[in-house]
Amino acid sequence: MCRWAAYLGEPVFLEDIVTSPCHSLIAQSHHALEGKTATNGDGFGIAWYGARDEPGRYRDVLPAWSDCNLKSLCGQISSPLFLAHVRASTSGATSRDNCHPFVSGRWSFMHNGQIGGFERVRRRLEASLPDHLYEQRHGSTDSELIFLLMMAEGLASDPQGAASRAVSRVIEASEHAMIEPDLKLTAAFSDGERLYAIRYATSGHVPTLYAGTLRGGTGRCLVSEPFDRSDPSFEAIPAASFVEVTDRNVLVRPFEPQQARALEMSA
Amino acid sequence: MCRWAAYLGEPVFLEDIVTSPCHSLIAQSHHALEGKTATNGDGFGIAWYGARDEPGRYRDVLPAWSDCNLKSLCGQISSPLFLAHVRASTSGATSRDNCHPFVSGRWSFMHNGQIGGFERVRRRLEASLPDHLYEQRHGSTDSELIFLLMMAEGLASDPQGAASRAVSRVIEASEHAMIEPDLKLTAAFSDGERLYAIRYATSGHVPTLYAGTLRGGTGRCLVSEPFDRSDPSFEAIPAASFVEVTDRNVLVRPFEPQQARALEMSA
Amino acid sequence: MCRWAAYLGEPVFLEDIVTSPCHSLIAQSHHALEGKTATNGDGFGIAWYGARDEPGRYRDVLPAWSDCNLKSLCGQISSPLFLAHVRASTSGATSRDNCHPFVSGRWSFMHNGQIGGFERVRRRLEASLPDHLYEQRHGSTDSELIFLLMMAEGLASDPQGAASRAVSRVIEASEHAMIEPDLKLTAAFSDGERLYAIRYATSGHVPTLYAGTLRGGTGRCLVSEPFDRSDPSFEAIPAASFVEVTDRNVLVRPFEPQQARALEMSA
Amino acid sequence: MCRWAAYLGEPVFLEDIVTSPCHSLIAQSHHALEGKTATNGDGFGIAWYGARDEPGRYRDVLPAWSDCNLKSLCGQISSPLFLAHVRASTSGATSRDNCHPFVSGRWSFMHNGQIGGFERVRRRLEASLPDHLYEQRHGSTDSELIFLLMMAEGLASDPQGAASRAVSRVIEASEHAMIEPDLKLTAAFSDGERLYAIRYATSGHVPTLYAGTLRGGTGRCLVSEPFDRSDPSFEAIPAASFVEVTDRNVLVRPFEPQQARALEMSA
Repeated sequence: MCRWAAYLGEPVFLEDIVTSPCHSLIAQSHHALEGKTATNGDGFGIAWYGARDEPGRYRDVLPAWSDCNLKSLCGQISSPLFLAHVRASTSGATSRDNCHPFVSGRWSFMHNGQIGGFERVRRRLEASLPDHLYEQRHGSTDSELIFLLMMAEGLASDPQGAASRAVSRVIEASEHAMIEPDLKLTAAFSDGERLYAIRYATSGHVPTLYAGTLRGGTGRCLVSEPFDRSDPSFEAIPAASFVEVTDRNVLVRPFEPQQARALEMSA
Repeated sequence: MCRWAAYLGEPVFLEDIVTSPCHSLIAQSHHALEGKTATNGDGFGIAWYGARDEPGRYRDVLPAWSDCNLKSLCGQISSPLFLAHVRASTSGATSRDNCHPFVSGRWSFMHNGQIGGFERVRRRLEASLPDHLYEQRHGSTDSELIFLLMMAEGLASDPQGAASRAVSRVIEASEHAMIEPDLKLTAAFSDGERLYAIRYATSGHVPTLYAGTLRGGTGRCLVSEPFDRSDPSFEAIPAASFVEVTDRNVLVRPFEPQQARALEMSA
Repeated sequence: MCRWAAYLGEPVFLEDIVTSPCHSLIAQSHHALEGKTATNGDGFGIAWYGARDEPGRYRDVLPAWSDCNLKSLCGQISSPLFLAHVRASTSGATSRDNCHPFVSGRWSFMHNGQIGGFERVRRRLEASLPDHLYEQRHGSTDSELIFLLMMAEGLASDPQGAASRAVSRVIEASEHAMIEPDLKLTAAFSDGERLYAIRYATSGHVPTLYAGTLRGGTGRCLVSEPFDRSDPSFEAIPAASFVEVTDRNVLVRPFEPQQARALEMSA
Repeated sequence: MCRWAAYLGEPVFLEDIVTSPCHSLIAQSHHALEGKTATNGDGFGIAWYGARDEPGRYRDVLPAWSDCNLKSLCGQISSPLFLAHVRASTSGATSRDNCHPFVSGRWSFMHNGQIGGFERVRRRLEASLPDHLYEQRHGSTDSELIFLLMMAEGLASDPQGAASRAVSRVIEASEHAMIEPDLKLTAAFSDGERLYAIRYATSGHVPTLYAGTLRGGTGRCLVSEPFDRSDPSFEAIPAASFVEVTDRNVLVRPFEPQQARALEMSA
């Protein structure tokens, strides 16, 4: 399991989230409190929106806590919208291509969770990608594949629907492989204007997700764990939720791809 | 284009080939004389057979000339059979998973050359792999894919036939994509007992290959470029050749997958 | 604080200590039980004696648990005498030059502990090195400096005396800087024939050290933590000890540089 | 020998110098035309001034041409003043701490050249640093040491004088070691407001330096090699020059530390 944090609001330095808070993302990379694994040392990445339509990105395979480049970049780069991730590997080698956030055009995506039994469903899911997205499969993680499935399902025009249909594809592939669907998906993604997140699992434990405001500002954060346990502005997002963050507010809607799929199949 | 060297014979330290000769593989990584690119700085790798059935392997993304680990390992490890490679990237990012030699079970493989128009044929070729080899596709290079195609065609029981059929598959995929087949394949591979090599191209320039004896010994080398221009023991292998090196001799046979395929298709 | 393991005995594969035991060094890199820090993800290294007088060495800045090269090397290399280390940084950046073991000629050295207030004593200690050892100062850690001080004090001819005098130098430098001496030194070192270790601290907690036999063999291990809690062959080495491991036995002698120094000063 | 480029003017994206021109710094890393070594693959670095007094910095040990992070950062970061460097190692291992630009407070520095016989003068020069700069000696290169000597000589208040006195120190240390002074110093440095450069050698070949305007703009570049041979705006800076670039113009003054020193010594 990984830890991540995302921000939308007035421009702030990335360090305001990545390194400075007492339970910052870097601190969580060393001592996560709510994850299955306390250490998230298998690489890291940031994607931020700035001068260009496409996000900037910096990823590396070192633990985030020891990377001097990351520290310098987070102190220099300010952005109104960014994603930051520290990785604890569940599938895929430690390589830059396997580090989140993943980027496709204007979209960026990062994930905490996994596809249980991934090796049993991987090939079927990869084969279902259209050519232009198959070419964008640079690494070997389940996370990148979920993102590409969401892109294939029309993320740009219907974010929640695309995410729901991508989840259905994973469930369908599991059933086809005769294994119990076991998807854990706490993810954030953005097109450079809005920030979206999902907290969802097909069953069992659902990786945590919190929403809050950045101390002293109006900007919104979505995080695996609050930066400060005593900060009442952080609220837990319930399981099976789809979150949309805009300049003005945080919308939380039910996210129930299994029900949608059941209805569809019975239709 | 890359540079590589392979050895079979009485055990020698890897440094006798990788670092010590005046035009050693490391020297070739900096100043290749016969390659299209003089610099081979996009990673390196060694695979050697020793105490176990499966080869040991060390790969990294740095230029070989600056890697202190490689220098130490090559001074310590002696082996009767090994492959060493320095990479100049033509496709695929600089990551360990894209560095040669590639390994599958007892087999190791390394390559100088490329599949022209790879992005047009990649998907079809990947889709043709059986499941157990599809799972061994760790990187994104054309080279690894050629190796897996050869494994799929029965490398263990019929090395030359398998290589020929793998080449035919690449040609067929190019034709299917309506592009002129453009494969350059100067490769070495081993099962830990024998050492094989191919020098072949569908058309045009064929990457170089030489065979020789290691100075002062009886062991045989296959190399992209001779370690010493004045050493008469190195002989150029002609284009369209399949090479088999055993303890006793070097066999060079014609390698003509296009003719074989033409015959097959006309049959 | 770091974790380490060393071995002397009949040749075994490095994996028998580094990766295979249930609480192997790799396991300790992720979940150390007795260290101040549970995670040792700031690089690793191995030094082994084999075909040459000087040890082979492989070090890298990644966490040991994710390094595929380390896994392969430990499965191929067997040695009668080796040192292995996983690092949790206390001073010095994460760079290969700062990873243990350090090597000088035939000697290798690795360390768990630190010099408290290092920045206050570093320059004086570095200035005290003879020229030929000053040139061997490749990194910036306190650990490498302790090793070079031991070399300067005659490690080759009088291991315990040299270690004792090196400790005295650190104490003296602390006193000169008007800070309380605060040295923690649980270290192992070898000249390729014998294996030595120290468990010592000027005050307070002393990093742990255990001696035992490798399961199913006669070889001796020195380790930060036993590979198996239920294995009665592992015994805790008391604080203020100097350990010498030979083919035949493990000698434990008192190591009391402060007393030696007090006597010397009162003389 | 290395290659570098620096810029002062209206803010531009770093890519306008680092990756985009036909003979960009990245192109020079692969195929330098005027350097002693055509390949500059031993790491790279950028330092840019932006939102903070201190510059941002990104350095890594890979060849610049294969680093996807560098490409993304140079496409996102725009700056009115920055330094960029690709390294061909002459002394010091390939580690981040040995990659240029070096930074101390607001100052940044990068260098093409070397101190001949460095191992003979290194210790004397390091010992001459004041404590607060000795602590900033993170790597082992001659280049970083020249920078720290310039800082020690008062770079902030008298850039040319400080550079001149630092050169004199190197000459003096060579003479003390009874070796012919052999310093090659084509360097750029900045405090975040002005951009300075030196082209100087004690004797023999002097590494090249050119000044020009960025195509289509008013900003000034200082470069090892022009981005475009046919661009008449690039002029060669003569040997023994000190260059000061401001918003308005490029001042070139004689830089003659040997003469200054001779006068001083005869006084």
